[in-house]
Amino acid sequence: MTPAPQLSHRASIMPASPIRKLVPLGDAAKQRGTHVYHLNIGQPDIETPPEFFDAVRAYQEKVIAYGNSQGIRLFIESLQEYYASLSIPLAFNDIVITTGGSEAIMFAMMAVAQPGDEILVFEPFYTNYNGFAIMAGVTLVPVGTKAEDGFHLPSAEEIEAHLTPRTRAMVICNPNNPTGTVLGDDELLMVRDLALKHNLYVLSDEVYREFAYEGAARSVLQLEGLEQHAVVMDSLSKRYSLCGGRMGAVISRNRAFMEVMLRFGQARLCSATLEQVGAAALVAAGAKYFDPMIAEYRQRRDATFEELQNIPGMLCRKPSGAFYIMAQFPVDDIERFAAWLLTDFSDGGETTMLAPGPGFYATPGRGTSEARLAYVLNAPECRRAVEIVARGIEAYNSLNRKD
Amino acid sequence: MTPAPQLSHRASIMPASPIRKLVPLGDAAKQRGTHVYHLNIGQPDIETPPEFFDAVRAYQEKVIAYGNSQGIRLFIESLQEYYASLSIPLAFNDIVITTGGSEAIMFAMMAVAQPGDEILVFEPFYTNYNGFAIMAGVTLVPVGTKAEDGFHLPSAEEIEAHLTPRTRAMVICNPNNPTGTVLGDDELLMVRDLALKHNLYVLSDEVYREFAYEGAARSVLQLEGLEQHAVVMDSLSKRYSLCGGRMGAVISRNRAFMEVMLRFGQARLCSATLEQVGAAALVAAGAKYFDPMIAEYRQRRDATFEELQNIPGMLCRKPSGAFYIMAQFPVDDIERFAAWLLTDFSDGGETTMLAPGPGFYATPGRGTSEARLAYVLNAPECRRAVEIVARGIEAYNSLNRKD
Repeated sequence: MTPAPQLSHRASIMPASPIRKLVPLGDAAKQRGTHVYHLNIGQPDIETPPEFFDAVRAYQEKVIAYGNSQGIRLFIESLQEYYASLSIPLAFNDIVITTGGSEAIMFAMMAVAQPGDEILVFEPFYTNYNGFAIMAGVTLVPVGTKAEDGFHLPSAEEIEAHLTPRTRAMVICNPNNPTGTVLGDDELLMVRDLALKHNLYVLSDEVYREFAYEGAARSVLQLEGLEQHAVVMDSLSKRYSLCGGRMGAVISRNRAFMEVMLRFGQARLCSATLEQVGAAALVAAGAKYFDPMIAEYRQRRDATFEELQNIPGMLCRKPSGAFYIMAQFPVDDIERFAAWLLTDFSDGGETTMLAPGPGFYATPGRGTSEARLAYVLNAPECRRAVEIVARGIEAYNSLNRKD
Repeated sequence: MTPAPQLSHRASIMPASPIRKLVPLGDAAKQRGTHVYHLNIGQPDIETPPEFFDAVRAYQEKVIAYGNSQGIRLFIESLQEYYASLSIPLAFNDIVITTGGSEAIMFAMMAVAQPGDEILVFEPFYTNYNGFAIMAGVTLVPVGTKAEDGFHLPSAEEIEAHLTPRTRAMVICNPNNPTGTVLGDDELLMVRDLALKHNLYVLSDEVYREFAYEGAARSVLQLEGLEQHAVVMDSLSKRYSLCGGRMGAVISRNRAFMEVMLRFGQARLCSATLEQVGAAALVAAGAKYFDPMIAEYRQRRDATFEELQNIPGMLCRKPSGAFYIMAQFPVDDIERFAAWLLTDFSDGGETTMLAPGPGFYATPGRGTSEARLAYVLNAPECRRAVEIVARGIEAYNSLNRKD
């Protein structure tokens, strides 16, 4: 057979999703009859609001036709209403609907950076920023944050030390995936000042906005003077437990930027019509949906954190947002340990899947003893899943000592 | 206000969709009460099969969760069944579900070409190839085809004259958008031989496969020896009148390539779950859906072509596939004429929207008197829409003569 032509460099360096790469091992465990607690992926178990299903079932058109490239009017207007309820007034053209927050991230990166340009990210970061940057040919420049600082941003000087003539933007994620950290006003003002001083875009991933347990997370859209620099990459996936709906948006008051978003959007024609129809009905769910959900997640966070604290040698802080805890484990190699939990360990026929830390870092060697835990199960299940981890650590380390 | 930071070069050169850019003029015409026949966009009016709606309405899960990055099993298996019915056996891992053919095109281009690499396309071509190439930083190298040759491929020598050390792939579209041309076996074998000789990928857009009126369109997946080079970019948009469903697939027997498709897919997590559930039910619609649909489109083609032939000075050939005719108009400037039809002309309160030719060419100055007509209305409406065009040409040219 003729050999295959070479693939591109970006294809060769594109990583497999570190969140998903343990999945085959988990599947094998399930096939052996082991129950697997999934703390590895941010897939909430909370029910999607019935308004979504009702709107989809009520759809009466006979043809699933192309929608407008910007998004269907009803959905865009519903987002205007949602943002107005947060005291963030937006014009209709400040919003372009995207296929999940994923497309919003990719479009935003491509619009501000040319292949070879640089974008700052704060480490650890949402692992898929890396994938989109590779596809776009953009270089991510990691700026470290530390567990002992609660993963808050470093000083302006430290950030500035990473700037080069090719830096085009900073990515922030607030509340943060994977650390659960919510940025304070002082940090947001520092980001604003840096962006204005160095004329950089601020690409702000605010997908977990509602998941803030000690006080609201502020949007970059609320920072005065940043109107031309602030871009929000938004998604309904977490807010309405709609991960498989792939409904997101890119939002900015920068006209030239939004004009580019629309042209990028035109190339891929539109986002899914039926899902937009369903999503447009969700603003009506509003606070009556969020309030009990956030109360539930607060319980889960508290339960997970409490159990983690009981593990000797485990280091973590109580995060104030999102639904993740980034913890430092008392094991030699988190990748090996996480795989071992699935292949060699079970406690009462059950085990736990984690997301190993290195996938959230760009700097080699960082995160090798850390893992992200997504507390997306109910509180008793979260407790049980962490209990399994505790027993796993004990067994794993005693095995290693014998080696 | 602080000025906005600069956008990327690719953002600045990203074209507005030429198919969609007349839309505001069309909207204004409608607001004046003018009925607009849309021959500008490939949005079929045929009803989506009820199987799609039935499956979506029957969905019982309470959470719209992330699906597998490769696609949901049921949908992938339904595509295996569909391809098997075309005598194209595919393994489960030969298929990755994409968000429309659009994502399949972008993923395929990014996997085979690095920023600065070149991909050959045959002109005129589906305009959005250009948008995806710009996003990916890839250079499209146009190879001309001619109306007088029925837009069939040029000779191997002519194609080879466009190859450089940076050429990575050829894109073909069969049946063709915008020309309606179906490639003959001799052409496909030439493409195969060139791909093997120069070790190039063949990225084959086969979205219009069923729309072949004089004999089936052959897939590159059927070309012996091309297993490592052939990539199909597929979509259900046209086949099942599901344009707003954004359901597509990228297909190849090249394992390394498909592994990259999966990793690209993991970065954006998954395609819409509910739409996949609906799409999985469509294979069952099968021939009982296609046969009357193709008969209907054949009528529409014949009606549109007949009316076009009656226009003095209009040049076109009867296309054998897709649902487009690329015609050469007896006007000075097709962009001006197409806009004028919407802003200044109506016949009995009606007018027609066309897709101007230049948007389908990368070579400046080509296509300036051509337009693409999408015969996606019923035959009497197609006739009427072309009649309006005929009267428009007469009025427009007599105005110009007076100028």
